[in-house]
Amino acid sequence: MRIVVALGGNALLKRGEPMTAEVQRSNIRVAAQALAPIASAHQLVISHGNGPQVGLLALQGAAYKPDEAYPLDVLGAETEGMIGYIIEQELGNLLPFERPFATVLTMVEVDPDDPGFQNPTKFVGPVYEKDEADRLVAEKGWVVKADGPKWRRVVPSPMPRRIFEIRPIKWLLEHGTIVICAGGGGIPTMYQPGAERKLVGVEAVIDKDLCSELLARELDADLFVMLTDVDAVYMDWGAPAQKAILRSSPAALAQVPFAAGSMGPKVDAACRFAAATGKSAAIGALADLGRIIAGEAGTTIVAGGTATLYHAS
Amino acid sequence: MRIVVALGGNALLKRGEPMTAEVQRSNIRVAAQALAPIASAHQLVISHGNGPQVGLLALQGAAYKPDEAYPLDVLGAETEGMIGYIIEQELGNLLPFERPFATVLTMVEVDPDDPGFQNPTKFVGPVYEKDEADRLVAEKGWVVKADGPKWRRVVPSPMPRRIFEIRPIKWLLEHGTIVICAGGGGIPTMYQPGAERKLVGVEAVIDKDLCSELLARELDADLFVMLTDVDAVYMDWGAPAQKAILRSSPAALAQVPFAAGSMGPKVDAACRFAAATGKSAAIGALADLGRIIAGEAGTTIVAGGTATLYHAS
Repeated sequence: MRIVVALGGNALLKRGEPMTAEVQRSNIRVAAQALAPIASAHQLVISHGNGPQVGLLALQGAAYKPDEAYPLDVLGAETEGMIGYIIEQELGNLLPFERPFATVLTMVEVDPDDPGFQNPTKFVGPVYEKDEADRLVAEKGWVVKADGPKWRRVVPSPMPRRIFEIRPIKWLLEHGTIVICAGGGGIPTMYQPGAERKLVGVEAVIDKDLCSELLARELDADLFVMLTDVDAVYMDWGAPAQKAILRSSPAALAQVPFAAGSMGPKVDAACRFAAATGKSAAIGALADLGRIIAGEAGTTIVAGGTATLYHAS
Repeated sequence: MRIVVALGGNALLKRGEPMTAEVQRSNIRVAAQALAPIASAHQLVISHGNGPQVGLLALQGAAYKPDEAYPLDVLGAETEGMIGYIIEQELGNLLPFERPFATVLTMVEVDPDDPGFQNPTKFVGPVYEKDEADRLVAEKGWVVKADGPKWRRVVPSPMPRRIFEIRPIKWLLEHGTIVICAGGGGIPTMYQPGAERKLVGVEAVIDKDLCSELLARELDADLFVMLTDVDAVYMDWGAPAQKAILRSSPAALAQVPFAAGSMGPKVDAACRFAAATGKSAAIGALADLGRIIAGEAGTTIVAGGTATLYHAS
């Protein structure tokens, strides 16, 4: 099988942990242990988040020379290199030397007319006092929103439209290469309106799960797995009657409200993939990866009118 | 032809320029204009330096939380992502949309017994006052050396032994992909001595030209070009009788002393490549790239006993 696995942010960094290279490496080592048996049996593509890492680079830049801080597209490219490197090294240490690896920098096209640009929603970078935030709005054209008692920059989260490196990624897979790509949802780029049709970076953040879905679809993946810190998608999450979904369909889930910040985008991405391809998408916990692929753990979403099944509670 | 082009540091940043993303992008745009016609006619692999970029990341890290600063291998991975991204985008804007690109993160193996580890020589990161430098030596085990009136960290520069991603790079080239790789000499890694044979990152810097030579050799490149800010290799550089070499051989150059910090490693890399492969290596200025490939500009080094020829002065 060809499998695309999207690693959740917690695979790199747990809430409250210091963001040192050692901590991230030790988390990635755990993820690599879950991924290694899958890599041995299947074609494997790995994508991952980068939110805290981009945030750290923004903080470091602001601490050194705020006026020379790099834009988000460039910071995203830096994190794709860094995280890809550690995944490649740690997973490589668990597999035979002969298995080829490639971390491929990934640029993603977004639409300048995407409605996301009218309503920036993604917090990025440090928090500021009100007057400092006002100055940055005036100086850099940022949009800021209240984040608790402080202020923070928000950027748009447009839909991913095209992954530029999709053919190289395919070619590498055909040769049995384990490919790490589309980190952080890919680097957001767009064609500048005008005759020249020049591709430029965009100050935005693409949802990692939606980008991974596009990646899985374009690669004709047989299975698309999103790993997170919850073991399954739950119906009535948080209520006494909450039930873990074992298997469902886009049609059955279409009317169910999931939290926008957490499970919502994952369910949305899984349903898109299943509906568009007729293949399965799954959501679950890193430690269960093998059993998720076997359909025994996590939540699998398949197209067609199957009734929703639940895990035994 | 299959051509490996190593971009010199000045293709990314000229001496004294502020290291903003805009400045680097605008320099890379100039490099892209020189590279585009070559990319149209040949298989092209691009490598590049990263010294100032790693230095900046080290400064940013030190300005924010010095105790959580990332090691050099991780910083190198970040710069491979960042610089690869800008090259890919700027060169892509000058070529037909259909031409595939891939920036491939590159890990390079070095030997734990490399004599370079006994004698660290490469300055990296910020300068320190003596007492601060002494503290870092005690705390982090750094080696520091005087750099003018201040102190600065030095790291080893071991020989590159193996490029782990060489097969993926080859496969991509066979499909006509323009590959950007081995940035900054590649990420230095080594197998930890012991039974486990685990690959780990190393606090070192691999010479970019020597790594690019290994890359060109392993890729069976027909031509290996190192671009710099000088238009050719000169005999008697700086003397009134200085003469620009048009064509020479490893044998003819073996006894000529070249400056260790600038032209020396390039001549060394070119001679290694020519001697090992029987193919040509060239050194010259970015703006002359087309004429260098035609053998009309720069310095071309070929194996065999040809006498040294000079440019008309």
